[in-house]
Amino acid sequence: MDRVDVDLLKEVADMRMGNPILGAFNIRKNGEGIERRSTKDVDIIPKTDKPGIDIIVKPNSKPEDVHIPVIVTQSGFSDKVYNDFIIGENAEVTIIAGCGIHNCGCDDSQHDGIHRFVLKKGAKLKYTEKHYGEGTEGGGKRILNPVTIVEMEEDSYCEMETVQIRGVDSTKRDLEATLGKNAKIVVLERLLTHDDQFAESNMEVVLQGEDSSAQVISRTVGQDNSVQVFNPRVIGENQCSAHVQCDSILMGNAKISSIPEISAEHPDAMLVHEAAIGKIAGDQILKLMTLGLTEEEAEQQILNCFLK
Amino acid sequence: MDRVDVDLLKEVADMRMGNPILGAFNIRKNGEGIERRSTKDVDIIPKTDKPGIDIIVKPNSKPEDVHIPVIVTQSGFSDKVYNDFIIGENAEVTIIAGCGIHNCGCDDSQHDGIHRFVLKKGAKLKYTEKHYGEGTEGGGKRILNPVTIVEMEEDSYCEMETVQIRGVDSTKRDLEATLGKNAKIVVLERLLTHDDQFAESNMEVVLQGEDSSAQVISRTVGQDNSVQVFNPRVIGENQCSAHVQCDSILMGNAKISSIPEISAEHPDAMLVHEAAIGKIAGDQILKLMTLGLTEEEAEQQILNCFLK
Repeated sequence: MDRVDVDLLKEVADMRMGNPILGAFNIRKNGEGIERRSTKDVDIIPKTDKPGIDIIVKPNSKPEDVHIPVIVTQSGFSDKVYNDFIIGENAEVTIIAGCGIHNCGCDDSQHDGIHRFVLKKGAKLKYTEKHYGEGTEGGGKRILNPVTIVEMEEDSYCEMETVQIRGVDSTKRDLEATLGKNAKIVVLERLLTHDDQFAESNMEVVLQGEDSSAQVISRTVGQDNSVQVFNPRVIGENQCSAHVQCDSILMGNAKISSIPEISAEHPDAMLVHEAAIGKIAGDQILKLMTLGLTEEEAEQQILNCFLK
Repeated sequence: MDRVDVDLLKEVADMRMGNPILGAFNIRKNGEGIERRSTKDVDIIPKTDKPGIDIIVKPNSKPEDVHIPVIVTQSGFSDKVYNDFIIGENAEVTIIAGCGIHNCGCDDSQHDGIHRFVLKKGAKLKYTEKHYGEGTEGGGKRILNPVTIVEMEEDSYCEMETVQIRGVDSTKRDLEATLGKNAKIVVLERLLTHDDQFAESNMEVVLQGEDSSAQVISRTVGQDNSVQVFNPRVIGENQCSAHVQCDSILMGNAKISSIPEISAEHPDAMLVHEAAIGKIAGDQILKLMTLGLTEEEAEQQILNCFLK
């Protein structure tokens, strides 16, 4: 691993030199698994039929955090990977994924991760996924198109946090979740686009089970000439509840569209959606400037709080 | 005019026997204009190239309320009508439209009104449209598909209230509004569906002019096996503001989908959307029951307040 690799791993998976990783992990670089470790509670098994790994968490276990970062440093490299996660009954685990692309060449680099999660009865998963791109010298783009499928059995809980802060030229995210009885999903999406970047986020949460619930919080910032499109969709097929909240800050000449759908197909479905798009209020900036910040610092401070 | 006509006119346009209509009016029955009056400020002129009328309100005038109800009493009758409204500069007017269908036959009765409004500079319009159906003996359906196009010049104001309370088997509403500088539109939609009724409401408000604004309030109740679908769409192309609020009460086995879109295409667009779908809270009903109401009375009281 060279300096670029180390920097990318730190950025996307908080894996630092000198900080030993205690749990299971898998590091994928330019389409190859370069390091991997299973533990007594977590098996990481390379797939034999297609690129990717199976991550199997033992029932009733509470393993150390699992790290599965992907880095792409070869300009023009296009990587597609299928990862399956089976979280056993009543297991409780945190999985840290992420993809960092360093592209200083002139060709586009792309990573498409297809992640499928099965949460068995009573399983608890906290999943974070951070996307990051760097290297603009050559003009090659950094493209990330993640697909996430979540199947949640009775009483399971899933918290998904996805973060894309800088450097990804184009992204199309798809999330599909199906919830069983009393299952709960919390989705936190944080996204910042700048320059001519494009981001599309599609989400379909199907509340199938009785007393299932979903909470979706999306916070995004559009800067420069970037474009963002959001299609969160929540379908209530049983007694269930959902709250979807999308807030976006407009800067520069960015364009943002929010097209949510809430569909109640059961008399005891309670679905709420809120969306707001607008620029930072002038009085917020003024207030921080009276405390001694410049206008740029004030703006940055507000963005940091908003995306935290 | 017979008893059925008189009842329908009262229901949809609040035109009552013995209560003389003071302003301009036009009554259309089964595809024919049966009575019409222009006044000094309001010209109502039948179109010569297609069915319908032109309603022209003089600049700077403040005429009496204009009534333009449509009634359909012939089972199996399908009526399509094109009405154009030109509201002159700085004129201020209230227009009361509405369509009542009495269908006791076995064939479907349908009325499709295509209404186009042009609000000149500084014009103020209050427009109400009430849809009502009755007569179920024969099994023929009552179908209403209104199309409304609103073009708003600088400083104009438009308030549109659309009401469909009972008896319309199928409706597909389309509203398109384009707003100039400092124009403001307020849309109030109230809708109740029951039995196997279907209602679709599409709305596209384009905020083109600087400081234009839109407020959309939609309140709906779905009962029995009825289905409702809402697609309100607001596009901010300039410094502008919009607030869209959709609240729906679910009863019986009704299904309701809300798919709003807010699109900010200008850095100074401020767009907010809120939607909620759910059944009446049990504690609200209980509270009214402690005041002596039966469960049905309590429910009806809540619906009345919600749709008022």
